[in-house]
Amino acid sequence: MFADILEKVRTNSPLVHCITNYVTVNDCANVLLACGASPVMADDEREAEEIASIASSLVINIGTLNSRTIPSMFKAGKRANELGHPVILDPVGAGASVLRTSTAMDLIREIDFAVIRGNISEITVIAGGESKTRGVDASDPWLLDGDLSEDVISMILELREKTGSVITVTGAKDIVAGEKGLYIIRNGHPMMSRVTGTGCMLSAITGAFCAAGTSDLAAAAASAAAMFGSAGELAFKRLTLCGGGTSAYRSYIIDEVSNMTSEKMKEVMKIEVR
Amino acid sequence: MFADILEKVRTNSPLVHCITNYVTVNDCANVLLACGASPVMADDEREAEEIASIASSLVINIGTLNSRTIPSMFKAGKRANELGHPVILDPVGAGASVLRTSTAMDLIREIDFAVIRGNISEITVIAGGESKTRGVDASDPWLLDGDLSEDVISMILELREKTGSVITVTGAKDIVAGEKGLYIIRNGHPMMSRVTGTGCMLSAITGAFCAAGTSDLAAAAASAAAMFGSAGELAFKRLTLCGGGTSAYRSYIIDEVSNMTSEKMKEVMKIEVR
Amino acid sequence: MFADILEKVRTNSPLVHCITNYVTVNDCANVLLACGASPVMADDEREAEEIASIASSLVINIGTLNSRTIPSMFKAGKRANELGHPVILDPVGAGASVLRTSTAMDLIREIDFAVIRGNISEITVIAGGESKTRGVDASDPWLLDGDLSEDVISMILELREKTGSVITVTGAKDIVAGEKGLYIIRNGHPMMSRVTGTGCMLSAITGAFCAAGTSDLAAAAASAAAMFGSAGELAFKRLTLCGGGTSAYRSYIIDEVSNMTSEKMKEVMKIEVR
Repeated sequence: MFADILEKVRTNSPLVHCITNYVTVNDCANVLLACGASPVMADDEREAEEIASIASSLVINIGTLNSRTIPSMFKAGKRANELGHPVILDPVGAGASVLRTSTAMDLIREIDFAVIRGNISEITVIAGGESKTRGVDASDPWLLDGDLSEDVISMILELREKTGSVITVTGAKDIVAGEKGLYIIRNGHPMMSRVTGTGCMLSAITGAFCAAGTSDLAAAAASAAAMFGSAGELAFKRLTLCGGGTSAYRSYIIDEVSNMTSEKMKEVMKIEVR
Repeated sequence: MFADILEKVRTNSPLVHCITNYVTVNDCANVLLACGASPVMADDEREAEEIASIASSLVINIGTLNSRTIPSMFKAGKRANELGHPVILDPVGAGASVLRTSTAMDLIREIDFAVIRGNISEITVIAGGESKTRGVDASDPWLLDGDLSEDVISMILELREKTGSVITVTGAKDIVAGEKGLYIIRNGHPMMSRVTGTGCMLSAITGAFCAAGTSDLAAAAASAAAMFGSAGELAFKRLTLCGGGTSAYRSYIIDEVSNMTSEKMKEVMKIEVR
Repeated sequence: MFADILEKVRTNSPLVHCITNYVTVNDCANVLLACGASPVMADDEREAEEIASIASSLVINIGTLNSRTIPSMFKAGKRANELGHPVILDPVGAGASVLRTSTAMDLIREIDFAVIRGNISEITVIAGGESKTRGVDASDPWLLDGDLSEDVISMILELREKTGSVITVTGAKDIVAGEKGLYIIRNGHPMMSRVTGTGCMLSAITGAFCAAGTSDLAAAAASAAAMFGSAGELAFKRLTLCGGGTSAYRSYIIDEVSNMTSEKMKEVMKIEVR
């Protein structure tokens, strides 16, 4: 099932509209192409709704949000909702400033998100918990480790109930909480946190997977996380063989996404259904 | 002749002013440096004219156009026109939104472009035809294949007449239509469409080649397309040898531009004059 | 001493707030992660002060400055000053337009900079000299070569006196002028000027090194320049071994930063105290 969704992305090549930050936008565009989708980046208020209409899904990423792009996020999101297109939220840095937290909360209030994807501190802020966001990268001490605390899982499930969105929390393990239960994904590599934009890239890919033609969006989000985590693992193997540092690793991750097949995914992915 | 223009770029190192999208701007800057030119990215209204004055050419790329940068495009374009500097238009995503189409048309009305470069759907929109733009990448079904239809060629020639600009249409083959006739360039590789920004990069390079000191701008545009396409071919050979995916390929393309010589160009380029 | 500062960055992982250009922002974020720091890019007026507060240092880079981001630079800079956080200025392209020159001068007037880092033409403009800026890359004819002219050194020392900032001038040699004297750094490779953003990356790294917990900011700035220059040298060795062009070289530079150790630094760095 999970691997089939990658095939669907490659076959249907959904157009994914991203209103995203200028830090990692190039990687998001390239990783969308790498997984078989087509990117369109457009953030002006005057075209946000129109681009949202021609695209199959929308990814709103609030990194480098600003006075000019925030209204576009709302317009595009509402239009995508009207058309029934899946909308993904990446609340980058929620908790780091009032602007980020309140924009994320307002977006959640006014737009129906198919999936909200963040690291544990961002998701905690969104869920109404205490902010411990330090930066925008996943290098925070809240990363989920070996044992998942019941508190964290309850918090995620409550957020799922409140928003009606699939919740993806990424860290040492990724958790995807959908209507039917939890997926725990044990893929990826710690070095992914030393490359900027791995979270943003997964959010973009989630947008592609949710637009691939499956109705089970939790499965699509889990598949996206497992595929990207698998690419991170394979890329680390290649790094070990070929040498290099964090920049080579970043390039290898996108390479592995572009060379991913459903066969490879089936071999590497570790998804536990709970 | 064509290969000499690359030499001129390396010798004269023209300063190329780009008002361009934030998705591929880094690749545009790096590919300009790679071919021997110098980039300057500047899009604020208060400096657009001044930067256009000190630069040797201007590249206007409407990807991620917005309310803040559109006025700068007009100001810089008019100033460059006054000074006789070549101005290049890349109408990214024309046809995808009213904002993009109307901005492209307004720019063409108010500014004399030396070269307009786009994929076939963008050029069709500019020419007043029906829009079939889906995204901003060249992955559309209109790519020129084996046989060039006479309708398409007529459309390109009419646009050339109407605008007085050299028209570069990129696809499986690239066509450059100038005053004296057509150049058909059979370089490049299909995988280039799986990397974001290859079109933007060619537009930036075209800006460099048109500023290198030749008066034959159609030859300059054809040389730019042949050089970049040749780099794409050589990069694909290296990919076959060294392995990797779309991210490696993107890096190899820029590498091959930086290592391109007039000798290599003469060997690889396939330009037919019609 | 110098190599210890790298260790401190890796241990303390300072959060570095960047208000920077969209051309090289991704490289700045990745190089900050590579050297052990954490990046946060945030340029909206409504969050500039708050992000400056949670960060340990601030890097203001005026490349692609604009009407929306300039006020954020002032707000963030003043807040960082109040909190005693080091603030770095990279006056990209000062001299290329009135907007850039006057913004740089206004920033210097209103904000106390720990370090100002630029190439020789930018620094000359800031010092009140004649502008010879051509673009934003270090490919200008003023690069410091074998012999440092006394005039240039006097100019740098005067700027140091006037501003109270450590002055870093990068070129064939890098000069860091602090209260106690000059550091002359003979690291780096000419090919670094063929990659966009090497200056921006050094400014970002300088922000990290100044926030690592040392009180000697001139030593921190010198260490940053020596570390980055050493990475450039090691990257060039790898390029010679592995092949490639300017894009490979760019990736190798960031790789070498990520793999840099204090031992390697001690071996490669060439800092002369004058």
